[in-house]
Amino acid sequence: MPEAAMDEFALIDNYFRPLAQAYAPALELNDDAALMEVAADRQLVITTDTLISGVHFIGNEDASLIARKALRVSVSDLAAMGAEPLSYFLALSLPAQTEEEWVRQFAHGLFEDQQEFGISLAGGDTTATPGPLGVTITATGLVPRGEALLRSGAKAGDDIYMSGTLGDAALGLLVAKGKLKGDALKSRYLLPQPRVALGRALRGIASACMDISDGLVQDVNHLCAASGIGAIIEAERVALSEAAAAYKGMLETILTGGDDYELVFTAPADKQAEIALLSRTLALPITRIGKTILGGGVAVLNHGTRLSLSREGYRHFA
Amino acid sequence: MPEAAMDEFALIDNYFRPLAQAYAPALELNDDAALMEVAADRQLVITTDTLISGVHFIGNEDASLIARKALRVSVSDLAAMGAEPLSYFLALSLPAQTEEEWVRQFAHGLFEDQQEFGISLAGGDTTATPGPLGVTITATGLVPRGEALLRSGAKAGDDIYMSGTLGDAALGLLVAKGKLKGDALKSRYLLPQPRVALGRALRGIASACMDISDGLVQDVNHLCAASGIGAIIEAERVALSEAAAAYKGMLETILTGGDDYELVFTAPADKQAEIALLSRTLALPITRIGKTILGGGVAVLNHGTRLSLSREGYRHFA
Repeated sequence: MPEAAMDEFALIDNYFRPLAQAYAPALELNDDAALMEVAADRQLVITTDTLISGVHFIGNEDASLIARKALRVSVSDLAAMGAEPLSYFLALSLPAQTEEEWVRQFAHGLFEDQQEFGISLAGGDTTATPGPLGVTITATGLVPRGEALLRSGAKAGDDIYMSGTLGDAALGLLVAKGKLKGDALKSRYLLPQPRVALGRALRGIASACMDISDGLVQDVNHLCAASGIGAIIEAERVALSEAAAAYKGMLETILTGGDDYELVFTAPADKQAEIALLSRTLALPITRIGKTILGGGVAVLNHGTRLSLSREGYRHFA
Repeated sequence: MPEAAMDEFALIDNYFRPLAQAYAPALELNDDAALMEVAADRQLVITTDTLISGVHFIGNEDASLIARKALRVSVSDLAAMGAEPLSYFLALSLPAQTEEEWVRQFAHGLFEDQQEFGISLAGGDTTATPGPLGVTITATGLVPRGEALLRSGAKAGDDIYMSGTLGDAALGLLVAKGKLKGDALKSRYLLPQPRVALGRALRGIASACMDISDGLVQDVNHLCAASGIGAIIEAERVALSEAAAAYKGMLETILTGGDDYELVFTAPADKQAEIALLSRTLALPITRIGKTILGGGVAVLNHGTRLSLSREGYRHFA
């Protein structure tokens, strides 16, 4: 009977406490909460994201991939603010029939990404649910005081840039569903790559920044609304991976699909050389894809012709 | 069509952004994360708890009560560490058919408790779920550096105390299910009262502290394990409300039922007078219910006879 073995406290002892051992503020998960200090020259960045099976991932992925994706979605929010990852809190809602081996693999995925991103488990809550698997991660990071990248700093006339390539994750979801082909795309859907080093490097360069989680057009719209400006995106400039280029006819999917977790940011025109250098240093494509303008809203042009999009991005309940 | 009106971003604008308005670190919920500072003489306390419909509450409660209970469960963890409530992050998983009026009431419940506990919304994530309603709250609080109450500080020979009365919530759940009678008990199940003022006052007095969420015996066991000691609880000393006294034959339910959110703490014997004064000042019963001892485990005596309990408290997956 795997159920009998799945005692809540045994799960914590066997799989989660080791993930918190090296991080003193976690108090070895013994207490009701974690106890952190923040140096006077730093600000603490905190972000929460929930992933639900059947909504944010398919559900048949390896447990380690689900864990890593959940952690990376939150780390990406830290990256978007220019913060260094510090710690995270895990609220895990497990279907009652979950096998212990699944939890072991889930924790192993967290272990791998803790190494990769220098982040530590700090606390959490494990509960049984009659519903689908749910993973809520609240991540913390540190940023030098006053240097966080916000969505609200863009000025009309700034350049708009994106990191990496767009659309891979949205196309990858269609691959995972058997509607398209391309393992590279599917990998990008399953395991996004938060741009922590880029976010850190953009402090003092970017005027505004966010990660692309719900779709480029909708996310740029949010950045513009926060900054009180508008934007023009030139769709033909948007960087595509080799795998995505095979589907470049699916432009709306690429421009409005979610889950890429690349950064989109603005910077004054005089930062172009600095940003080009940054791209080479980080070995990461950074592409200028448009301009901010006075006014509001986002116009998407394709070789000079305005695109009419049926939606701008992913919305729950829509 | 209420569904069409339930746009994720409209929900945030209409119901959640107002809850974050007065708290600068929330950045008006415009950004990817909140941005907090912590004074050098303070430590930040952070705790995460998930409540799922059908597991942690019945599901037919008023939305405002569900919201307030979810917030209070986390505030209780802050109280247990002796922290002042500061802010919280809300990860809300809403069944797709949720009506907007439900969300309005949910947010109003949060509004009421924000006033009561001096806490502010700082960020969150709202998603649709094919499963039951889920609410994960990550709460933050502040405590003077080095003064947090931990589970690990109890010494053999300390007195064990509890605040308020025990068992009301567990009996109240049975009332809610129609198995017992007593509206006062049901109210205590629906709306726990975090002991923030007591937690604050116990700094420098209590040697160890935690809140009673999973059942007194199990929770004291956790405190003892963290402190490396054992305990004897004298069941006849445990304080019962008038309503619960009618069911005092259900001693195991009272001693091992969860959801009371009273504090259980230890203190050296020379603190008895100070604690009695505290009880009068706060107009809150504080009852000495046992002693810590060398060794491990918790023995429960009833008028001198050791009780054999079929379980010590609530466990998921058990």
